[in-house]
Amino acid sequence: MPHIAIPEGVPGIRGLFSVRPETAGPLLELAQVLLHAPGSLSRADRELIGARVSALNDCTFCRTSHAAIAACHLDDQSIVDAVVRDPETAAIPEKLKALLAVAGRVQIGGRAVREQDVERARLAGATDIEIHDTVLIAAAFCLFNRYVDGLAAWTPSDADGYRQRARHVAEHGYTAASPAAVAALPAR
Amino acid sequence: MPHIAIPEGVPGIRGLFSVRPETAGPLLELAQVLLHAPGSLSRADRELIGARVSALNDCTFCRTSHAAIAACHLDDQSIVDAVVRDPETAAIPEKLKALLAVAGRVQIGGRAVREQDVERARLAGATDIEIHDTVLIAAAFCLFNRYVDGLAAWTPSDADGYRQRARHVAEHGYTAASPAAVAALPAR
Repeated sequence: MPHIAIPEGVPGIRGLFSVRPETAGPLLELAQVLLHAPGSLSRADRELIGARVSALNDCTFCRTSHAAIAACHLDDQSIVDAVVRDPETAAIPEKLKALLAVAGRVQIGGRAVREQDVERARLAGATDIEIHDTVLIAAAFCLFNRYVDGLAAWTPSDADGYRQRARHVAEHGYTAASPAAVAALPAR
Repeated sequence: MPHIAIPEGVPGIRGLFSVRPETAGPLLELAQVLLHAPGSLSRADRELIGARVSALNDCTFCRTSHAAIAACHLDDQSIVDAVVRDPETAAIPEKLKALLAVAGRVQIGGRAVREQDVERARLAGATDIEIHDTVLIAAAFCLFNRYVDGLAAWTPSDADGYRQRARHVAEHGYTAASPAAVAALPAR
């Protein structure tokens, strides 16, 4: 049961957004810029970083949600599962492995990121902005994960719901109105 | 030395904001809503939560910055120092102690927040929105702290600089233009 009153049937972070729209706005905008807006890293890579950090933080809602979104972008579930389990043994380029290693250090704490972690990413071709975005995505999931589980938000267990939502987010992003919200708009 | 190129002389998170204005916007907006906009908890209480979580995350820049802002709001440095050191022994009301304890659990991880932690806050008079905001402020500082130290942003050591900046933020908030920016605006 959630620690505070949340509208029934609205899962995870979206239930929390509905109780505090003032904070939902900047959080959704942050997700949009970091994960969906045009960027140096692909959308799939950015979602993989989010899913992996959520797994390290043991946040089932965020891990399942963002793994499903990454799988939509890649049209491949097995590679996502492999990255979430252990990036080092997954069949992905060294640059993404190195960035996921940086993200894993950020999950432990800011001071856990070592010169050698950043150096490895740079040697594999990562730019300043890619290193910046990796650190900020990992840090943002340390927020999202704590927000969801710190308030014990509802975590559905049916995989279909996550997949359906994932397709919508993969296509329209985080700040686009949901189809239900659009359908509810008054006709003009 | 920072892990990526940051303009010299711009400290902490503000240096990072200048390299990626697209993410600076929502992060500043989030800080404004959580810490400065009218809310159920006082500005001082909210800054104390931020300073305490930053201390637990061992983030010198954020701890010093937000302790200084809390001290501006309270016009009292010693109570801030006591809270940052150990909320349970500080001369503050039980409700704030209980909320700081919830924040301390969030710092460990979302799943570390126990029913009994929330119950203690509720018994001391905390509302749903106060519990929500406490969890989200603590989670947000788990982002801010990792962002600053994960990129090894510049952390000045002169207390005067922090105090000066704190006075500005305490008065004008997080999204107001800095005096330098205002001075640089063209006259109309």
